[in-house]
Amino acid sequence: MPTGVFFRRVTRSRFTASIIIPYVQDTIECPGIVWPGADERMLDKLDLSKTTDEAKYEATLESLKERLGVLQRTLRDQKIPTVIVIEGWNAAGITMVVHEIVHALDPRGYTLHAIEKPTGEEKSHTFLWRFWLRTPPRGRIALFARSWYSRAISEEMQKHTWEKSLKSRAVQINNFEKKLTDDGTIILKFFLHISKEEQKQRLEERERNPLTAWLVTPSIWNIHRHYEDSLVLIDDFIQKTDTEIAPWIPIEATDRKYAILKVYSSIVKALEKKSEAAKENKARKVKAKEVVKPKKVTVKRHSHPEKVFTKDELQETLANLQIEMLELHYLLFKRKIPLMIVYEGWDAAGKGGNITRVTRFMNPLGYYVVPIAAPTPHEKEYHYLRRFIKHFPTGGDIAIFDRSWYGRVLVERVEKFCTEPEWQRAYGEINEMEEDFVYSSGGGIIKFWLEISKEEQLKRFQQRASDPMKIYKITEEDWRNREKWDTYDEAIDEMLARTSTDVAPWTVVESDDKWFARVKALRTVIATAQKLL
Amino acid sequence: MPTGVFFRRVTRSRFTASIIIPYVQDTIECPGIVWPGADERMLDKLDLSKTTDEAKYEATLESLKERLGVLQRTLRDQKIPTVIVIEGWNAAGITMVVHEIVHALDPRGYTLHAIEKPTGEEKSHTFLWRFWLRTPPRGRIALFARSWYSRAISEEMQKHTWEKSLKSRAVQINNFEKKLTDDGTIILKFFLHISKEEQKQRLEERERNPLTAWLVTPSIWNIHRHYEDSLVLIDDFIQKTDTEIAPWIPIEATDRKYAILKVYSSIVKALEKKSEAAKENKARKVKAKEVVKPKKVTVKRHSHPEKVFTKDELQETLANLQIEMLELHYLLFKRKIPLMIVYEGWDAAGKGGNITRVTRFMNPLGYYVVPIAAPTPHEKEYHYLRRFIKHFPTGGDIAIFDRSWYGRVLVERVEKFCTEPEWQRAYGEINEMEEDFVYSSGGGIIKFWLEISKEEQLKRFQQRASDPMKIYKITEEDWRNREKWDTYDEAIDEMLARTSTDVAPWTVVESDDKWFARVKALRTVIATAQKLL
Repeated sequence: MPTGVFFRRVTRSRFTASIIIPYVQDTIECPGIVWPGADERMLDKLDLSKTTDEAKYEATLESLKERLGVLQRTLRDQKIPTVIVIEGWNAAGITMVVHEIVHALDPRGYTLHAIEKPTGEEKSHTFLWRFWLRTPPRGRIALFARSWYSRAISEEMQKHTWEKSLKSRAVQINNFEKKLTDDGTIILKFFLHISKEEQKQRLEERERNPLTAWLVTPSIWNIHRHYEDSLVLIDDFIQKTDTEIAPWIPIEATDRKYAILKVYSSIVKALEKKSEAAKENKARKVKAKEVVKPKKVTVKRHSHPEKVFTKDELQETLANLQIEMLELHYLLFKRKIPLMIVYEGWDAAGKGGNITRVTRFMNPLGYYVVPIAAPTPHEKEYHYLRRFIKHFPTGGDIAIFDRSWYGRVLVERVEKFCTEPEWQRAYGEINEMEEDFVYSSGGGIIKFWLEISKEEQLKRFQQRASDPMKIYKITEEDWRNREKWDTYDEAIDEMLARTSTDVAPWTVVESDDKWFARVKALRTVIATAQKLL
Repeated sequence: MPTGVFFRRVTRSRFTASIIIPYVQDTIECPGIVWPGADERMLDKLDLSKTTDEAKYEATLESLKERLGVLQRTLRDQKIPTVIVIEGWNAAGITMVVHEIVHALDPRGYTLHAIEKPTGEEKSHTFLWRFWLRTPPRGRIALFARSWYSRAISEEMQKHTWEKSLKSRAVQINNFEKKLTDDGTIILKFFLHISKEEQKQRLEERERNPLTAWLVTPSIWNIHRHYEDSLVLIDDFIQKTDTEIAPWIPIEATDRKYAILKVYSSIVKALEKKSEAAKENKARKVKAKEVVKPKKVTVKRHSHPEKVFTKDELQETLANLQIEMLELHYLLFKRKIPLMIVYEGWDAAGKGGNITRVTRFMNPLGYYVVPIAAPTPHEKEYHYLRRFIKHFPTGGDIAIFDRSWYGRVLVERVEKFCTEPEWQRAYGEINEMEEDFVYSSGGGIIKFWLEISKEEQLKRFQQRASDPMKIYKITEEDWRNREKWDTYDEAIDEMLARTSTDVAPWTVVESDDKWFARVKALRTVIATAQKLL
């Protein structure tokens, strides 16, 4: 139930000095709401004395509930996912508003997420991890009673570097919301605003009621005392995250009925508008935008290594490297540094065998292989990145992806499983996601492209087809993919050029010679691990 | 990585006096293993000096790995799920054994679960909850490095009532494993046994190696010092959970190669046997067995209430009850008592409207509705109970199931989506599951059967069909179900008679009158909640 937001004790002057940064903001259209100017505080502009009369309330609410019920079914049929965020002061009425919303909804079509402190597992992941997992599937509504906003403020304010942290959280949140809206999700965010005096009265009222008195903890009173400080901070954070694609709607919440009505009508109007737009197929065209600039170099690919060792030499090298890997794995584990190893490559390039050799002396409790196949129908209901983020490693774990999110710009691009704007957008989305992982976790990402020549692939296909122990490894699809060699070739070039970043560079592994490839992969993992330690 | 098992300090004599209980055990067949007699300790009988020579090891292991690889694919095609549990002393080689097993497996077909302390969320659920969620889907292998066995011992030993708790854990575990094997899962359990002296040497060796020294914590030495006490306790627990369907295979683990070979050959032989049996369609017929005896009473169903109030009277009563519900909900939440409310009933009996009224004044952050539809393809890959257990409430939450696990003995029985032995078995399985929830959580289960007459159903169907706002609620399937009224009638009678237990009785709600039904449901919830407080 109600959670408290903890604020570090800071003086008002310090806030004013450091947090209020001139902020340029476009005027945006928001149903029925007049937006404050760029240099004004959003919340201070609200007229908290607004009320609604009883008769109007009853009549309007009933009709809005009916419209919301119908809208929920329409959005379901249109497969549009919706995120509704309810934030606000303690005792501002978050629970009450949520209560009224859910009562208009069919339970089969929404999920309510009450966001409190993260669990131990959630805490070990990146900040947005648990919110990614809570994004709604297509056609459903995710309703958040508090959200990444409360969490960002209450978690970051406990750090000494909170000013910097909060700024970077705002960027992360905007990127997160952009990914979702680009994917078709509607995001609506409400902040329930009440005055300090009003909050005081409500908390006292709760304290007088024996049933609710226990909810009013000393830390809630403590936050109340810092109301003015918090106001400045919250207002700034709201403005930083108030975007055209996911606007904030501040709500005057003194009069509960007025608040409910305004939230309801904003939701209904916004959803009706989006739903109409979708019907008329006027959905906003999403432009591909690279948020993290990739190095614009063409990555050279060779399938054959420059030097070929004898098998004995390589075997010995491999054995030595594997023992070194074992020791490094212990150190990564001990220091809780996570590592991701991504394997991509042509069919029959030897990903499986390479993984087996790289993990030969890893502690099996400290690594896991994530084999990626085509998304299941369930997975398709979500943003394409969600199923990968779910498996990201924490602590000292090593996650090895046997194929990965790069499927978006390879097979999905070539086979037209996604549209061109979608895969064009993916380069930036992927770079952002990888950067976020590396910066948040302090870990590393190694990306292998296993390159073989077209002739070598043919040889291996034929070998597999003639070996009864390996015939299961070769399918019709492999032959079909082979026919599209050139189309893949182009997609691979573009992928390597646009997603080789400083934090997560690609390593091309010359794999015509399997043993060389295994040694090179292991050497790369070892070198990266050493840099991380 | 390695986890410690904590043992309460107990004297040897106390163990001997209270834990070693005469235990009757059938001789069971286990590949290559001679079973100890009923009155002997299993582990003491092992010859820990057994070894394997190098040449034999290399040759045998290679061929076993190949066979395991093939078996994995066969079991996948046969859709047989497999659970392999590796338990043993600290430093007995669990990690090493797991390591060797996974290297023969295709990562697409197995999941390794390293079981350590439960997370906060897991701790708030019943003991077996997290293991239910980790059961393998059909055709896949779940490999457990430590399991519910280590957890039962280390968690229960910290309680004052550990003797009783451990006994009841053994029963729960046997029931859990029985449910899985009845559903076709193969379960293999290994215990790696070493002597106290051997353990001491290994721990000292680890301490000398700077890379592994940090793994040897004071608590691990503490457990080592209580080796003899632990031995008695573990041996007893192993014997209590050594069943024909899920036998223990003790492993002499002094010689690492011998241990690996024995584990490997046991797995390969057992799986080959099961796979052959499945091929010959000789899978053991499962007899329906009711573990929890239900009250053998016929539950009378009436669709019409004895007394009908005027709508005004009922509305007023309902309003009062809803306020009472609000207060009780706070108390349940405060005292962290979970509650499940199950709604079953004829189509159009008014489940949705009833749920809306019952939850009218509940805090939305403290309850959730779980709407149950036909299982998805993904859900079908698991034991049918898993998808419900996943949503069981913890703390002070109220989970409302709009349809439930009773689908097994209603729609799945009538439509023949499961076999007769399957639904016959389900009554006992369900009683056991509900009993486990109530006893473990201290919470309650309320089960509503919403009864309407066949005439009333027709009336409502026709109303829905003619109302443009409600027409989406009525489908062809509803009409088809209606034709099978009598078959359902019989299934409902049997369900009510066989699953109305003391811990989770059914309440028939006369629902021809919607308002009466809502009042009765709310009254029942309030009465149950009051008893729980």
